[in-house]
Amino acid sequence: MSDSTTQRTGVWFVGARGSVATTTTVGLLAIRAGLAGHTGMVSELPQVAAAGLAPLDRIVVGGHEVADGSLAKRAEELSAGGVIPPALAQVLASELTAVDERIRPGVVAGHGSQRSAADRVAADLRAFRTEHDLDSVVVVDVSSTEPPAPEGPAALRTPEALEAALDAGEAPLPGSSLYAYAAFRSGCPFVAFTPSPGPRVPALAALATAAGLPWAGSDAKTGETLVKTVLAPMFATRALKVRSWSSVNLLGGGDGQTLADPDNAASKTATKAHGLEAILGHAVDGPLHIDFVPDLGDWKTAWDMVSFEGFLGTRMSMQFTWSGCDSSLAAPLVLDLVRLVSRAQSLGLRGPVPELGFFFKDPAGSDVHALSSQWEALVAWCARAAAAGGSA
Amino acid sequence: MSDSTTQRTGVWFVGARGSVATTTTVGLLAIRAGLAGHTGMVSELPQVAAAGLAPLDRIVVGGHEVADGSLAKRAEELSAGGVIPPALAQVLASELTAVDERIRPGVVAGHGSQRSAADRVAADLRAFRTEHDLDSVVVVDVSSTEPPAPEGPAALRTPEALEAALDAGEAPLPGSSLYAYAAFRSGCPFVAFTPSPGPRVPALAALATAAGLPWAGSDAKTGETLVKTVLAPMFATRALKVRSWSSVNLLGGGDGQTLADPDNAASKTATKAHGLEAILGHAVDGPLHIDFVPDLGDWKTAWDMVSFEGFLGTRMSMQFTWSGCDSSLAAPLVLDLVRLVSRAQSLGLRGPVPELGFFFKDPAGSDVHALSSQWEALVAWCARAAAAGGSA
Amino acid sequence: MSDSTTQRTGVWFVGARGSVATTTTVGLLAIRAGLAGHTGMVSELPQVAAAGLAPLDRIVVGGHEVADGSLAKRAEELSAGGVIPPALAQVLASELTAVDERIRPGVVAGHGSQRSAADRVAADLRAFRTEHDLDSVVVVDVSSTEPPAPEGPAALRTPEALEAALDAGEAPLPGSSLYAYAAFRSGCPFVAFTPSPGPRVPALAALATAAGLPWAGSDAKTGETLVKTVLAPMFATRALKVRSWSSVNLLGGGDGQTLADPDNAASKTATKAHGLEAILGHAVDGPLHIDFVPDLGDWKTAWDMVSFEGFLGTRMSMQFTWSGCDSSLAAPLVLDLVRLVSRAQSLGLRGPVPELGFFFKDPAGSDVHALSSQWEALVAWCARAAAAGGSA
Amino acid sequence: MSDSTTQRTGVWFVGARGSVATTTTVGLLAIRAGLAGHTGMVSELPQVAAAGLAPLDRIVVGGHEVADGSLAKRAEELSAGGVIPPALAQVLASELTAVDERIRPGVVAGHGSQRSAADRVAADLRAFRTEHDLDSVVVVDVSSTEPPAPEGPAALRTPEALEAALDAGEAPLPGSSLYAYAAFRSGCPFVAFTPSPGPRVPALAALATAAGLPWAGSDAKTGETLVKTVLAPMFATRALKVRSWSSVNLLGGGDGQTLADPDNAASKTATKAHGLEAILGHAVDGPLHIDFVPDLGDWKTAWDMVSFEGFLGTRMSMQFTWSGCDSSLAAPLVLDLVRLVSRAQSLGLRGPVPELGFFFKDPAGSDVHALSSQWEALVAWCARAAAAGGSA
Ligand SMILES: NC(=O)c1ccc[n+]([C@@H]2O[C@H](COP(=O)([O-])OP(=O)(O)OC[C@H]3O[C@@H](n4cnc5c(N)ncnc54)[C@H](O)[C@@H]3O)[C@@H](O)[C@H]2O)c1
Ligand SMILES: NC(=O)c1ccc[n+]([C@@H]2O[C@H](COP(=O)([O-])OP(=O)(O)OC[C@H]3O[C@@H](n4cnc5c(N)ncnc54)[C@H](O)[C@@H]3O)[C@@H](O)[C@H]2O)c1
Ligand SMILES: NC(=O)c1ccc[n+]([C@@H]2O[C@H](COP(=O)([O-])OP(=O)(O)OC[C@H]3O[C@@H](n4cnc5c(N)ncnc54)[C@H](O)[C@@H]3O)[C@@H](O)[C@H]2O)c1
Ligand SMILES: NC(=O)c1ccc[n+]([C@@H]2O[C@H](COP(=O)([O-])OP(=O)(O)OC[C@H]3O[C@@H](n4cnc5c(N)ncnc54)[C@H](O)[C@@H]3O)[C@@H](O)[C@H]2O)c1
Ligand code: NA
Ligand code: NA
Repeated sequence: MSDSTTQRTGVWFVGARGSVATTTTVGLLAIRAGLAGHTGMVSELPQVAAAGLAPLDRIVVGGHEVADGSLAKRAEELSAGGVIPPALAQVLASELTAVDERIRPGVVAGHGSQRSAADRVAADLRAFRTEHDLDSVVVVDVSSTEPPAPEGPAALRTPEALEAALDAGEAPLPGSSLYAYAAFRSGCPFVAFTPSPGPRVPALAALATAAGLPWAGSDAKTGETLVKTVLAPMFATRALKVRSWSSVNLLGGGDGQTLADPDNAASKTATKAHGLEAILGHAVDGPLHIDFVPDLGDWKTAWDMVSFEGFLGTRMSMQFTWSGCDSSLAAPLVLDLVRLVSRAQSLGLRGPVPELGFFFKDPAGSDVHALSSQWEALVAWCARAAAAGGSA
Repeated sequence: MSDSTTQRTGVWFVGARGSVATTTTVGLLAIRAGLAGHTGMVSELPQVAAAGLAPLDRIVVGGHEVADGSLAKRAEELSAGGVIPPALAQVLASELTAVDERIRPGVVAGHGSQRSAADRVAADLRAFRTEHDLDSVVVVDVSSTEPPAPEGPAALRTPEALEAALDAGEAPLPGSSLYAYAAFRSGCPFVAFTPSPGPRVPALAALATAAGLPWAGSDAKTGETLVKTVLAPMFATRALKVRSWSSVNLLGGGDGQTLADPDNAASKTATKAHGLEAILGHAVDGPLHIDFVPDLGDWKTAWDMVSFEGFLGTRMSMQFTWSGCDSSLAAPLVLDLVRLVSRAQSLGLRGPVPELGFFFKDPAGSDVHALSSQWEALVAWCARAAAAGGSA
Repeated sequence: MSDSTTQRTGVWFVGARGSVATTTTVGLLAIRAGLAGHTGMVSELPQVAAAGLAPLDRIVVGGHEVADGSLAKRAEELSAGGVIPPALAQVLASELTAVDERIRPGVVAGHGSQRSAADRVAADLRAFRTEHDLDSVVVVDVSSTEPPAPEGPAALRTPEALEAALDAGEAPLPGSSLYAYAAFRSGCPFVAFTPSPGPRVPALAALATAAGLPWAGSDAKTGETLVKTVLAPMFATRALKVRSWSSVNLLGGGDGQTLADPDNAASKTATKAHGLEAILGHAVDGPLHIDFVPDLGDWKTAWDMVSFEGFLGTRMSMQFTWSGCDSSLAAPLVLDLVRLVSRAQSLGLRGPVPELGFFFKDPAGSDVHALSSQWEALVAWCARAAAAGGSA
Repeated sequence: MSDSTTQRTGVWFVGARGSVATTTTVGLLAIRAGLAGHTGMVSELPQVAAAGLAPLDRIVVGGHEVADGSLAKRAEELSAGGVIPPALAQVLASELTAVDERIRPGVVAGHGSQRSAADRVAADLRAFRTEHDLDSVVVVDVSSTEPPAPEGPAALRTPEALEAALDAGEAPLPGSSLYAYAAFRSGCPFVAFTPSPGPRVPALAALATAAGLPWAGSDAKTGETLVKTVLAPMFATRALKVRSWSSVNLLGGGDGQTLADPDNAASKTATKAHGLEAILGHAVDGPLHIDFVPDLGDWKTAWDMVSFEGFLGTRMSMQFTWSGCDSSLAAPLVLDLVRLVSRAQSLGLRGPVPELGFFFKDPAGSDVHALSSQWEALVAWCARAAAAGGSA
């Protein structure tokens, strides 16, 4: 295998024409063309870049998608919504069309058996790797959020039980987990950018370890939760007692529409709530709303109100409003994760990489939620990777 | 000397009837009487308590003050303003009167020579220590903020030059520095809770080191700046570019009144601005206002607006409103600092204690401003103190 | 009957030991004792006082309540919660006890027949009027919000149908409507301070008119909705297009607890939503949350986010945070309404008084929601009342 | 003269390539081309349109400007700043160039005598009217804000004194007033969109009346002040006592740069402060900041914090954040004012038109600041205009 800093890396999106995937793709092409800088990319900070990461100009994009349309069209829509500079969408139109040709039909639940669907997905991944002569292909789930997985059906407990169920024509896998299964079966590391079950199902976690593949997740921490995990440690280390923490998230776009369904939102509100309790060490009162407000498009406005108590019982409060563009916040992190997970693979790591918890609301393999601690862990990991040297 | 956890500690306030000193005194008495808990006290968190700190029930309070009135009256006013529970002010009235009797007249600029004033202050400190059989007396400046010290007059450069100037009947010392001088001359460690020059004048810093005395400062970080030093690292480690950061602080009370004078405010705006640039690594545009709004009393409302840029140049923003009671936030930190500086003394430390930067806007002896890093440093220091053992 | 400005007025609270009733009672006693001013009382503004209103020192308080406890105890709790100055609760304790003796047991659904319950309530009202020699007794519903009334059961359509149903031992009346029925039967005007059905049921509206009694409602406009009805006309008259308006209300207290039940909240969210659409002339997207956050007590924090469009389609936004004490905002309006409804009675008005829409989220007898228009209507009504002269 | 609804109207901008003028021009052309709607235009609301206003498709644009560059270039910049949809700037480029050819060099203070400058400006105005066969030419000052005029120099007191001073080669007129002088001398009504002295100088006010010309001003009310004048009446009519009202305005752009100079800002802070006191009837504490934050471009973020008192002295607060695009808010009002002032001229009105106070922070000829009252006055005026008929 090549040196990590010259390696050819593939990124394979599940949900390849969604907002996040499209913004990532446009950004990658724009940076490569010298039309955009690295703002928002953690992997370009010296402490992280030190790990020896795959060069951006050798990353090839492909993916699965169930929706029609084209990347060029999606890019135009995103530029109308203020996510992407209009000029970029125009200039990159033909390159986007080239990527579009590498997008394969995604898996629609209920169409055919899960066994055959998984085989097809795995075949797509292998073909992509071969055709583009890639050292590594990282599968990134940026598709619509699914409902939480049912608690522990037998078929999802071990790789053996899973194989048996698939052989028997059963369909035990949540959609996102089917993609993770196919990825692991074809030797691809995985990034669970969404709160969907994906690789967290026990059978798949075991499979990844057995296959010697690293993965990272779940649910990228890009907005209100990000802020929470820097503010909560402030209250904790200052011995201030948080009495209630109320959160409202208003968002439009495809993600907003998906989360308007309470079943889907359940995954998200669960991962969003984890951090606060873990950091403060006690349950915290207060609502957590995610509301679909179509007019906001890909922009999110979150408002949080923290009521806390200080010396002698004095009640005080803090509130913040976050006005962010979710896809702009997510896209650079996708590139970071592709590079870091691919580096983890070259280092021979397997299973969840806890040091990538910095990127996630529900960090796989870790209980640490405070952003500063996650940052320290990430930087230390990168230093170790640097010491391990550039070859794999 | 006694074991650090049984030692009798004196706290000597400069500004002993101000809001912060009064709230601290009431709080100390209330905790001792079992009428209040430890919320807001960092030194009661296990990681800090581990250092082996002076027990609260052996702390004796005294101080200097230039204003008339009584502690009991000030406590009543603070309870009317929502800073202190009304019941406490009533129940503790007689104990407050006892403390009041230990408050001596402060130094008024221009009344007599600085030499004689310093001698008197030093004598008061020694008398306090003797009379109450104290192992250590920590002087804490919680008096009104002064203007910044003039840059480098010769008399303030070395202890020798300073002594010569005082002998010559000159008055080279800013008011806060006169107290620090007297403290160091009488063997007392010092806490610069305000942004006033205090012990930072080169001659005094040298004097403290020569006398083997530790000190900590400057300007306690209790509100908007506290939040800034947890949010700024978030932007930095996420590679988001802060384009402007605008800050407004509305406050009433004695502190607000003092800061309504632009000369005095200059000290504060200087220390408030330090952190952001240090953390982000570049100058940041945007106003920083401190406005006196009498009707707000001891409550402060701060509003900050951060404009930042993400991937592909997308502009986003975050704003927060902090509604805090300054004296409630400050008082527990005063108790923390008294215990920690007294512990530093028992450990034989001299000069500024950089690991106490956690408490300050302009940390003496340190360039670190990110709260989480300051916390790590503090906890590590406490662990070392624990290892050093409880006796001094 | 006496001159309106010397008349003896009774106010009879349904929910006499709730937060609103207690705050109103304390306030009335405090003003009378010269311990408080008139801030928040619309009826003391010259344009409204002009109507010739009942003097505050001749108002007698009584009521129904289903909860145990005492007014003095409730006042203490409210003073601990920052609603009432602590001194007031202490000073007025014995007067509150006197009022407490005039509070009768309220009607608990399911205990006995509605016919007998209504008879008992009516008897209580008559006894109160006689005993205290009152010219007028205004019944004010400040009890817990009920769910919306079922649409149009036959028994609630006409007074005759209602009487027949009651005679037949049926229980067709929502709790609040039972009180309104008893009020109208005993010659008392009514104020529907809550969103509960109360007098809005067709049979009761007809009964009031037949009995020559005025009433006012529904659901006092004290906080976020108040602000909405001044901001929405701004957007409308400036031809700015409101795209979405999202609202969050966080509140604790008894009211918050009641509204934590979605059935009860349905009444509230319905009345809260009316105004916006009526003013803007079109449906408006965006969530409307009412969340129970116990730690906030009687204080409410509401956050609204308005997304709007201007010239050439430019998207802009406005957000506001309202931090109010609901009972403090409500209590003076209760006194205003008692005086104004009693004046309406002395003027011989019957049925809903549309000019009192100024006070309500869902103005009975009116479609006008813009606060400024409601104010104009109220002032004009008061001028007419002034012209009509002080006698009835 | 033609019917008001078919008349050909000229709008002559002072500051014709500024943000407001450019946005207005682009908007007018876009509406005419069917590329944009009327959002933000008050004169398209039925109650105002009823007055019989000049058709948008017969408005011709010209103006004075001291800056180089072109309208097309400015439009591009504004579209990059999110003020104008990018497509519009492109599509309208050639039409903008046509307007550009009608822009004449503005008056630079100190270049030549004021007499000759005024003559040149007047000649430009007459040439514009003749060349384009215009029934009316409305001069609109949208140039950079000037400092307040010196109080009452003799030369500005009467038309005669002014003429004598100009004849004597003196330069008594503030820049904005020189344009107003030339406008009135050449029979053109005037709109003072800025807080600059303009037509408010006594000599010019007298001149306008003598010349039978109407004018309107000063300082368009588009953002934070607009909100203030709807919220303040709410507090007033609810008898709530405003204790302090603190205001911060952050803005970039040309206007922000001009207002970064405290002399220029003095005009603005004066007009911004008027309304609040007038509505509440008493002085109100609290700072009013206008800060230049270049990164915000043509977007303004204003934050206001209102501290108020309710029943029994309870302290409450409200805060709002306004995120608006100043030029988008201003441009439609410019078109409204051109049409309304031109209509005033056709009705034979002279001097300030108080009913246009709806549009201004410092309404000429009126003391009314509450937006709703101003709206009522405007609508009534339009109804009278409608009754007066369409011909002049
Ligand atoms: N943007 C952020 O800040 C952020 C942060 C954390 C998590 N996420 C998650 O990332 C995901 C993507 O967000 P988005 O804004 O791009 O949403 P989106 O709705 O724009 O895109 C999702 C895409 O997935 C596609 N898809 C759905 N089911 C699929 C399937 N079975 N196979 C293949 N493709 C499928 C959809 O057609 C759509 O194009 C969401 O789950 C979101 O919750 C985003
Ligand atoms: N409360 C906070 O959160 C906080 C945070 C950082 C810094 N501080 C600083 O702490 C100091 C105290 O704040 P406060 O709110 O108590 O102010 P305060 O005005 O209530 O108290 C200051 C006291 O100092 C006294 N004083 C003034 N000059 C003196 C002198 N020469 N000798 C002795 N006493 C003197 C005054 O009479 C007054 O009683 C201020 O400098 C403030 O800036 C406070
Ligand atoms: N405070 C405001 O700003 C405001 C504004 C609009 C409407 N309201 C409405 O006013 C009402 C009172 O609010 P609150 O904060 O005082 O609530 P609360 O819960 O403190 O008081 C309600 C009282 O009603 C009593 N009650 C319940 N059922 C009863 C019955 N059948 N008969 C007699 N008493 C009964 C309860 O025991 C309680 O004491 C609520 O419905 C609220 O929605 C309040
Ligand atoms: N945008 C709003 O919401 C709003 C509201 C109220 C008032 N205003 C006022 O409108 C004015 C214009 O605002 P803007 O944002 O367009 O500012 P801007 O700086 O973009 O434009 C002002 C223009 O005036 C030109 N100018 C300066 N001196 C001149 C002179 N002597 N003769 C001719 N032209 C001259 C400048 O070159 C510039 O092109 C400002 O005074 C502003 O305070 C704007
Ligand atoms: Na975890
Ligand atoms: Na109605």
